[in-house]
Amino acid sequence: MEINYPGGTRANHNNLKSKPTRFNTNYGDRGMGLESELNASNQYYLAHDIAVIHKKPTPVQIVRVNYPKRAAAVIKEAYFNKASTTDYNGVYRGHYIDFDAKETKNATAFPLSNFHQHQIEHMRKCIQQGGICFAIIKFVKTNDIFLFKATDLFQFWDAQKKGGRKSIPKLTIQELGYSINYQLQPLIPYLEAVDQLID
Amino acid sequence: MEINYPGGTRANHNNLKSKPTRFNTNYGDRGMGLESELNASNQYYLAHDIAVIHKKPTPVQIVRVNYPKRAAAVIKEAYFNKASTTDYNGVYRGHYIDFDAKETKNATAFPLSNFHQHQIEHMRKCIQQGGICFAIIKFVKTNDIFLFKATDLFQFWDAQKKGGRKSIPKLTIQELGYSINYQLQPLIPYLEAVDQLID
Repeated sequence: MEINYPGGTRANHNNLKSKPTRFNTNYGDRGMGLESELNASNQYYLAHDIAVIHKKPTPVQIVRVNYPKRAAAVIKEAYFNKASTTDYNGVYRGHYIDFDAKETKNATAFPLSNFHQHQIEHMRKCIQQGGICFAIIKFVKTNDIFLFKATDLFQFWDAQKKGGRKSIPKLTIQELGYSINYQLQPLIPYLEAVDQLID
Repeated sequence: MEINYPGGTRANHNNLKSKPTRFNTNYGDRGMGLESELNASNQYYLAHDIAVIHKKPTPVQIVRVNYPKRAAAVIKEAYFNKASTTDYNGVYRGHYIDFDAKETKNATAFPLSNFHQHQIEHMRKCIQQGGICFAIIKFVKTNDIFLFKATDLFQFWDAQKKGGRKSIPKLTIQELGYSINYQLQPLIPYLEAVDQLID
C-alpha cells in the first residue's frame, strides 16, 4: 500500500531509512540468508577448533575518503568490484577448502547463471593445487541445502558452453550432491559432507 | 611551497585531487610497496599454474549506497573495518597457505606492534588445522625481504606478553628466517622459501 500525505504529496522514498532497504533488496536477495547462516556455522567451527573458514570481504574500489579526524576515515565514494574468486575459503583437517554459496528461488533447477566464468576458473585452479572445491546450493522455497562438488558443476558448466542446458535439475543435485540438514550447532553442518569428500 | 591566490585566498586543499593523496599517505605508508610486489608475484604464480594465492579485499562496513542507475551502485558512506584474519591465503602443492606482509622502516629490528593479537590467533588456529603460516617481512631501508615462520613469530609474541622485547632483531630474522631475493619473474619468489618449509 502506498501512503499519500494530506494534500496528495507522495511519501519521500529518498529518506535515509529507505536506502539500506534498497541496498538489501539489490545485493541481499541472492545469498544473504544463506550467507548469514554459513557465517554463523563458520563461527561455530572456528570457536570449537574444527576449521578456520571465513567469508572474504566484499571487494570495493575506494575512490574518495574523508578524514574529519585522523582516526575516523569515512569512505565517501566507492564502487562494488566483481569478485575474482569464490566467497569462502580456509583450512580444515589439513585441506584447503574453497567454495561459493548460492541461493535460488527456482523450485526444480539451479540456474548456472548464478556462477561467473572467473569463479569456475578459480575453482579449477584450486583443485589443480589439491584444494577441495564445491558449491553450497540452497533452494529457498523448500529450504533444501546441498553440497555440490565443483567437479560435478564443471560438467554442467562445460556442457552449457557447448549448447547444453542452462541449469542443473534439482533431481541431479539430489543425486550427485550431499544433502545438508539444518541443525542447531552449527546451523549448516556442511563439513560433515566435506568429510565424505575427503574420506 | 604554499600558493596563495591574488587577494590572499589560500589554495583549496579540499579539491578532488588532494583526497586520493591523503588516502595513500594514511593507508599506504606501511605495506603498499610490498603489497603491490606480492600481488604481482601472486599473479605470476596464478598465470603459471604454480599456486592460487590472493590478497583478501579490504574489509569495509557499507552504510549508505546510492543507485543513480540500477547497474551503477555508488557507495556514499562506508568505514574501514579491522581485518579479523591475515591478508593473504590460498593453496599451493596441496597445502593451505596463510600469511601477512609487513614493511618496517626500522633498520635493525622488526617491531611486533605491526601485528595484532587477532592475526596471531588466526595463524595459530590455521597451523592447528595443518596450514602453513608465516610473515613476509620487508626492511624498506635496505630492501631486504624475509619469510619468517609463524611458529618463530609466536615465540617472540608470547615473550613480549611476559615483558620481553617489543621487537625481533633483524639478526634473528636473518638467522631463523628465509632470505628472499628480488628477481624478475616472480618479483618476490617467496614460494621457494615455502618449498623449504614443506620439504
